[in-house]
Amino acid sequence: MTKLAVSPLAPDRFPDLPVIEGVAFATVAAGIKYSGRDDVMLARLAPGSSVAGVFTRSATRSANVLDCQAKLVNSHTDGAAIVVNSGNSNAFTGKHGDGSVAAICAATADALGMPPGSVFTASTGVIGQRLPHDRITSKLNDLVNGLSPNGIAAAASAIKTTDTFPKGASTQLDIGGKPVRIAGIAKGSGMIAPDMATMLVYIFTDAQIGQTDLQGLISNLNDQTFNCITVDSDTSTSDSLMVAATGTSGVDVTGNADFADALHRVMLDLAHQVVRDGEGATKFVTVRVTGATDDADARKVAMATANSPLVKTAIAGEDPNWGRIVMAVGKSGARADRDTLSIRFGDILVAENGWVSETYTEADGAAYMKQQALDILIDLGLGNGESTVWTCDLTHQYITINADYRS
Amino acid sequence: MTKLAVSPLAPDRFPDLPVIEGVAFATVAAGIKYSGRDDVMLARLAPGSSVAGVFTRSATRSANVLDCQAKLVNSHTDGAAIVVNSGNSNAFTGKHGDGSVAAICAATADALGMPPGSVFTASTGVIGQRLPHDRITSKLNDLVNGLSPNGIAAAASAIKTTDTFPKGASTQLDIGGKPVRIAGIAKGSGMIAPDMATMLVYIFTDAQIGQTDLQGLISNLNDQTFNCITVDSDTSTSDSLMVAATGTSGVDVTGNADFADALHRVMLDLAHQVVRDGEGATKFVTVRVTGATDDADARKVAMATANSPLVKTAIAGEDPNWGRIVMAVGKSGARADRDTLSIRFGDILVAENGWVSETYTEADGAAYMKQQALDILIDLGLGNGESTVWTCDLTHQYITINADYRS
Repeated sequence: MTKLAVSPLAPDRFPDLPVIEGVAFATVAAGIKYSGRDDVMLARLAPGSSVAGVFTRSATRSANVLDCQAKLVNSHTDGAAIVVNSGNSNAFTGKHGDGSVAAICAATADALGMPPGSVFTASTGVIGQRLPHDRITSKLNDLVNGLSPNGIAAAASAIKTTDTFPKGASTQLDIGGKPVRIAGIAKGSGMIAPDMATMLVYIFTDAQIGQTDLQGLISNLNDQTFNCITVDSDTSTSDSLMVAATGTSGVDVTGNADFADALHRVMLDLAHQVVRDGEGATKFVTVRVTGATDDADARKVAMATANSPLVKTAIAGEDPNWGRIVMAVGKSGARADRDTLSIRFGDILVAENGWVSETYTEADGAAYMKQQALDILIDLGLGNGESTVWTCDLTHQYITINADYRS
Repeated sequence: MTKLAVSPLAPDRFPDLPVIEGVAFATVAAGIKYSGRDDVMLARLAPGSSVAGVFTRSATRSANVLDCQAKLVNSHTDGAAIVVNSGNSNAFTGKHGDGSVAAICAATADALGMPPGSVFTASTGVIGQRLPHDRITSKLNDLVNGLSPNGIAAAASAIKTTDTFPKGASTQLDIGGKPVRIAGIAKGSGMIAPDMATMLVYIFTDAQIGQTDLQGLISNLNDQTFNCITVDSDTSTSDSLMVAATGTSGVDVTGNADFADALHRVMLDLAHQVVRDGEGATKFVTVRVTGATDDADARKVAMATANSPLVKTAIAGEDPNWGRIVMAVGKSGARADRDTLSIRFGDILVAENGWVSETYTEADGAAYMKQQALDILIDLGLGNGESTVWTCDLTHQYITINADYRS
């Protein structure tokens, strides 16, 4: 396929990510599918690290995901590694897929001198084609020799598939006068929907926190970030979020609210970047629902709106077609009442009391829709339930990418 | 907007529909939104008719739908009428919408000499704009004067919105040596998904059957026909299916299986025509799921596949990307097992035992996808649950229609 233009919603540049002591990265061009670019990344985590993860709930999830889930129940305080390839998802490849995962883990363990049970893998790309894992295992010595604390930006690029830009985010906070750093990378642009909406995300911190606490924290934060984004309502067989805490800052963050806030910011930033790279996206859309009977109903309305092809095409056409939002509310399955429902585009009151607002003009709505970032606010007027999700528009380019490209 | 080309999946021509004794039709150009075409239809049902209906379950359904639902609980054996306009859905128009329905019913009742409680209405088109019902009521005398038993084809055209062809279907059967006729019309092309997937459907028969029995019959048949089609997963605020039995054949069909079969055929034919006119459709796709734990799980898989943007764009691109079907199975929420799952394109075995079939070739798959009618067969290998749904592909034309057109 021809190279895709960078999303108009992309950040200006890849951010400067801080070095996380205890983590080293390397990338290599293994020629899995793409040529002329690195397509495998290795991250090595120092002894003393905690590793936690959240994965797709797909019933057809990949061999890699199943392997990671099995391994996470064990402790990895003697160090661990993460190996990720792009270009082939190793999903629905039967026993061959299980074999590929075992081969990559064995070779990585060998090269790094750690047990295979401490090696986590992910594969992303086309489904159902046998992974040529020899191309990865034959490059492992190169990868190990290339390990560097400064390699995270190259890693962000190596894990891309249809992504038009690499995704990174970081933050630093002070806890008791000592600095704690968090840096993460992500890939994902199509087949994006809960559960869970990540494609691949790797976050590293030098904070000190036990595995169980870290796992509880990221499961909770995942529900507020990656599980609140949707590009096309399709759920990947490979989605993985892993967070590693090396403890090298010497700061124990167990139960620390400031650390949780900081990690939430990094996860939300990466989640938003995935939406901003949504296949064909030209608009970044926040759908916020309030006044629902409960949070679950609010989420139903938010997701029905964010996934509606008719709402998403109207946004693509910069058409303030709020009637389609009414349709989405109606089909969501949530309790709703025409006469208590109100709809706003940003600060513009569009509809209330069962009809279009007296103050609303089509000209105001049309002008609002020309913006690149849009807020759709839906109040059901029934209770205190609320939910916010993020999505993008549905454009010709989405069709072009997905009708013509074997992803 | 420019006039849409007729769907490549359209039938060669509108069928010859039999006259149903006891039903008369008229149409008129009221100028609700469209110019140069009829946009209102009136159907008058003779005394002795039974009327039954099934409607959208949308929480934001239109004033017309709410009014029809309230009226159907009463008997209409003194005759009834159906008035339908295109170009404006009268949905989410607050108290004004209720007023428009009341005004149309009152004027129709007056012109036909029947109580307003026997007049059913439907409106289809843009949501949230006040219906200029005066344009309809001022034409009622013209409509009544134009009533004819032969007007059903004109009625099918008058109720179109983005439809590229009028939809009609009929059948005739002999019961005890006497002929019984069924003829129906439908409109719908976008915002098509259960519940229920019809947009507007009106079916007439000269069979004799009580209201309660007719209602039970069509509710059941609706679950096997209109509730099994999806174009874009969006659910209309106006969907209505009404069936009227005039009894003029003198043949009591209560509990008659042949009549049920015949009515099922007509309903399925119309449902398929709605899919064939799916916005931008170039492929007619049957998704059949077998071997599920139960029918509900089978339906989850069928609908997840039929609604997946990634599956639908692959079909549009004639790409035998069966990996995306695996993805859809996985995300459906149904119980599935990689190693018992099999996938077929028509007679071609694509995948089994957790991977691509040894006999499958990409060339076979690619050749199959070039056909206009495609069968995707998914066997989960777990139980006896099954489900069949019908859908179309997702093309550039869908985006063009919906990004540029205020439907």
